[in-house]
Amino acid sequence: MKLLSLFYISKLACGILVNPLPKPVSIEWNDEGQKKFNTNIELVMDKDDDIVFEQFYKMIDTIKSLEWFPAATESPKAEYPPVPTGPPSNLTKRQSVESIDNELDQLRIKINDMDADLQFGVNESYHLVVSDNILIESETIWGSLHALKTLQQLVIYEDGDFKIESGVEIYDEPILSHRGVLIDSGRNFLSLEVIKENIDLMSLAKLNTLHWHLEDTASWPLEIKAYPEMILDSYSAKESYSQSDIKEVINYARRRGVRILPEIDLPGHANAGWKQINESLVTCGSGWWSAIAAEPPPGQLDISQDETYEMIEKVFDELNELFPDTYFHVGHDELNPSCYNFSSSIYEWYEENNGTFYDLVQYWVDRSIPIFTKNDSTRLVMWQDIVTSENATIPKDKILIQNWLGSESIKEMASQGYDLIVSSSDHYYLDCGFGGWVTNNTKSAGSWCDPYKNWQNIYSFDFYANLTDSEKDHIVGAEVALWSEMVDSTNLITKIWSRSAAFAEASWSGNKENDEIRVYDLTQRIFNYREYLVALGYDVDPLAPQYCWKNPHSCDISLE
Amino acid sequence: MKLLSLFYISKLACGILVNPLPKPVSIEWNDEGQKKFNTNIELVMDKDDDIVFEQFYKMIDTIKSLEWFPAATESPKAEYPPVPTGPPSNLTKRQSVESIDNELDQLRIKINDMDADLQFGVNESYHLVVSDNILIESETIWGSLHALKTLQQLVIYEDGDFKIESGVEIYDEPILSHRGVLIDSGRNFLSLEVIKENIDLMSLAKLNTLHWHLEDTASWPLEIKAYPEMILDSYSAKESYSQSDIKEVINYARRRGVRILPEIDLPGHANAGWKQINESLVTCGSGWWSAIAAEPPPGQLDISQDETYEMIEKVFDELNELFPDTYFHVGHDELNPSCYNFSSSIYEWYEENNGTFYDLVQYWVDRSIPIFTKNDSTRLVMWQDIVTSENATIPKDKILIQNWLGSESIKEMASQGYDLIVSSSDHYYLDCGFGGWVTNNTKSAGSWCDPYKNWQNIYSFDFYANLTDSEKDHIVGAEVALWSEMVDSTNLITKIWSRSAAFAEASWSGNKENDEIRVYDLTQRIFNYREYLVALGYDVDPLAPQYCWKNPHSCDISLE
Repeated sequence: MKLLSLFYISKLACGILVNPLPKPVSIEWNDEGQKKFNTNIELVMDKDDDIVFEQFYKMIDTIKSLEWFPAATESPKAEYPPVPTGPPSNLTKRQSVESIDNELDQLRIKINDMDADLQFGVNESYHLVVSDNILIESETIWGSLHALKTLQQLVIYEDGDFKIESGVEIYDEPILSHRGVLIDSGRNFLSLEVIKENIDLMSLAKLNTLHWHLEDTASWPLEIKAYPEMILDSYSAKESYSQSDIKEVINYARRRGVRILPEIDLPGHANAGWKQINESLVTCGSGWWSAIAAEPPPGQLDISQDETYEMIEKVFDELNELFPDTYFHVGHDELNPSCYNFSSSIYEWYEENNGTFYDLVQYWVDRSIPIFTKNDSTRLVMWQDIVTSENATIPKDKILIQNWLGSESIKEMASQGYDLIVSSSDHYYLDCGFGGWVTNNTKSAGSWCDPYKNWQNIYSFDFYANLTDSEKDHIVGAEVALWSEMVDSTNLITKIWSRSAAFAEASWSGNKENDEIRVYDLTQRIFNYREYLVALGYDVDPLAPQYCWKNPHSCDISLE
Repeated sequence: MKLLSLFYISKLACGILVNPLPKPVSIEWNDEGQKKFNTNIELVMDKDDDIVFEQFYKMIDTIKSLEWFPAATESPKAEYPPVPTGPPSNLTKRQSVESIDNELDQLRIKINDMDADLQFGVNESYHLVVSDNILIESETIWGSLHALKTLQQLVIYEDGDFKIESGVEIYDEPILSHRGVLIDSGRNFLSLEVIKENIDLMSLAKLNTLHWHLEDTASWPLEIKAYPEMILDSYSAKESYSQSDIKEVINYARRRGVRILPEIDLPGHANAGWKQINESLVTCGSGWWSAIAAEPPPGQLDISQDETYEMIEKVFDELNELFPDTYFHVGHDELNPSCYNFSSSIYEWYEENNGTFYDLVQYWVDRSIPIFTKNDSTRLVMWQDIVTSENATIPKDKILIQNWLGSESIKEMASQGYDLIVSSSDHYYLDCGFGGWVTNNTKSAGSWCDPYKNWQNIYSFDFYANLTDSEKDHIVGAEVALWSEMVDSTNLITKIWSRSAAFAEASWSGNKENDEIRVYDLTQRIFNYREYLVALGYDVDPLAPQYCWKNPHSCDISLE
């Protein structure tokens, strides 16, 4: 044992191979020596929980079937110039240790509050100790699920054994309560299969919210029983979601610690679906798009008419039943004043109320929010336009504001006391950089939010920049967003992953160490994580030539 | 019959649903009426050919299993503002015709020269007539293969029958002899499976050359029997190509009308593989990359040493046996003078010859080209640097120059009489726009050749711009290039396709109609083609929201 300890002290000095992502808030390797991980490990809980059971057995299955050995590992940069005498170093294979005394036979999971619901703000912290056995302590089920994802990444397979490299103790919890990925089934349809695949990938990376932009002007793929005609504006019968499909996704996500935040975009970006109910409640839907809408087809709800409110009330009564999350996203981006020039009813409203477009928006807010929040506990998310473009007065305690315009607007809103979800297009919009999709457009090759956001760009975003401490407290969440103009089931996964692993870490434990952006520190961790995802069967984008991760930091831009 | 004819005249006036890609040089629909396509059609040839047989049966299988009906069809823009009374029009379903008199029972293929080899410049023209039966006439087998791909796209499935919409006559031939896609198995490995999948996609789009950049500084995945140690620089034993793998790909491609143009990049971009033979023949391979190489790892062949020429002679003797194509690409991009400061032998060469870097390059040209072209019929391709950066004197009759720098260099080279393959990075580099892959790089988010090249950017490239007629004649080929820094088998297909269909058409029948870039005309054709590829089982990128192709030209940037 003495010898083993010495070996491990020296090994620890030169680094552990395993490098879990997202990086835990606190991880301490000790010198207890290498541990053998028994894949028949006993699970002990004071009180059983089928979600934890399921995820525990998934973890064991993954560990056993994958037999993972780290692909990209950390090591200091090579020294230059002394000429190396061999080929580029391959994976650092250590000397194997003949026998390991410690076998980890028991995993004890202690959860304080088995009933805490998966909702915004639920405690997700966990404490994980690998010593003579394995202990997970957490306040809630959801914290334990995160601990299992960490544990899964700690186990490696080497010389015929499943092992953990050393005793270790982890304290971990997210810096943001809401860590999300936005997907969009309005521009193009997304299959249930690919949505579930993305949920699996989110869960492994400790992301906890799937923001599902369900529909848009172009199509309405969602079954509404009160208005069965809405689904006629899905792209086809096969390309639609029944309410039982939705429940299936909600349940699938919940069992993996992922909330579903539904979005119905109102009153702009509204045409498909609504026009099937009553075409006269959609204004400008028949105009040529470019002067009256952010994108084709145009269309906004006519918010001057009583029938509009009756219509949305019926729809939201049903949707609030369907979606269990406290939060509902009700859109409100890119409302276009010119579109309302098509409506004689709105002309009349302007005259009768001696009002402007901005008054009309306030009228919409005052009349629609009580409908959306009929259930007292319901909270809303709205795009930032409602405050930064239209300066409307809204109930701050009931509404989270989602940022999407440039990051400079964050301070403006935080200083005004809005609670924020950050998803600035200049760092977190995953659809940027693929060129314009609008047709007959030979001149402009760029997309509006160029450039493409690569993993280093995503990771480096300092959304706390220039904020006071009290302003920082208003940032309660963050999301990366993949809008679907050029996305469908064929390429959703490859466009979100593997780069979003950088976001997952930034929103979990942050992107800084000692006040410095830790991209250098992330490099080998994310390269290894990408190979891990490929080994799990996901076709996710490579981030560099294989040479780069086999030779740590050899592809850095500068030697220092 | 009279009635049918009338129906078809009126239908022809409003357009045929089928819209093959690439657009043929000449296609004339007549008023002979709808034809029923017998999937047990008899194939008649004067002389049998197993390649044509195989591709014929593949075509029949595809037609039968796909039961294709056009997804995106052409129609005039909707008129605005008159308010439409229904939902956005779905696929234009025509009235079905109760009975069709004509059944197409025979396909006659007449090939003049059954022996013409698949080489640069081979005649690829074809004549296709659908009348009482189907006739394909071509000079060579390779022209007939193209005709089969066109025919495959003409057949649609409607109301339980396979049909061709009307009699039709097509004369077709490419404007460029060399229409290629560059793939790169040097930065990251590419599986045989994905290379073959790409060949299938190329063949369907009438692209005839796979430019295979086999290796680079980072890895050497190719078996060389004379130097078995070279393969030690593959990323792993599984990630390498045996010579029988290579033969399998060559044969697979040939049967689909696709040449394999191999590239071994010399004397720059040379480190992996070569250093296993003799490390002292690779200079600067051990330095820090950023000042001495375009990308990590650095390394160039030491072209001052005799042993270098002996080494490449052995390698090329073997490779010229392996690859049947007349052409061999020998690289020569981005040679870095500073790298040669690491070699004492080159210092001596400079002194002894009272020479400069440019003299040394000329020495390389004069000594290496006879080695590469030992076989009298061998022809070479080299990157443009040899003439535009180093101004070397080269045998113009033996060498095609491949352009990759900005399109403005095309005129310079064409005016000097070089025969050219155009692949300007500002339109044809498919790897651009994904951000930098070099690590520890938090500031710069762009890639060197931003922006991303979308289908409209690719299609609109006028590589004949500002050229005289005689300069135009020097453009003999074009390629799109997908370099592999951020590509491997997981995402090769989705990054090349569907946008490269625009390139396939531009290099086959051009991108202009009446001197105008015909992006408008391509829109519905390429949207349909993308859906066709998805129906065939390929996960290729969508180019727009489904709404756009279901409502032709509704997503144009301007109404005119």
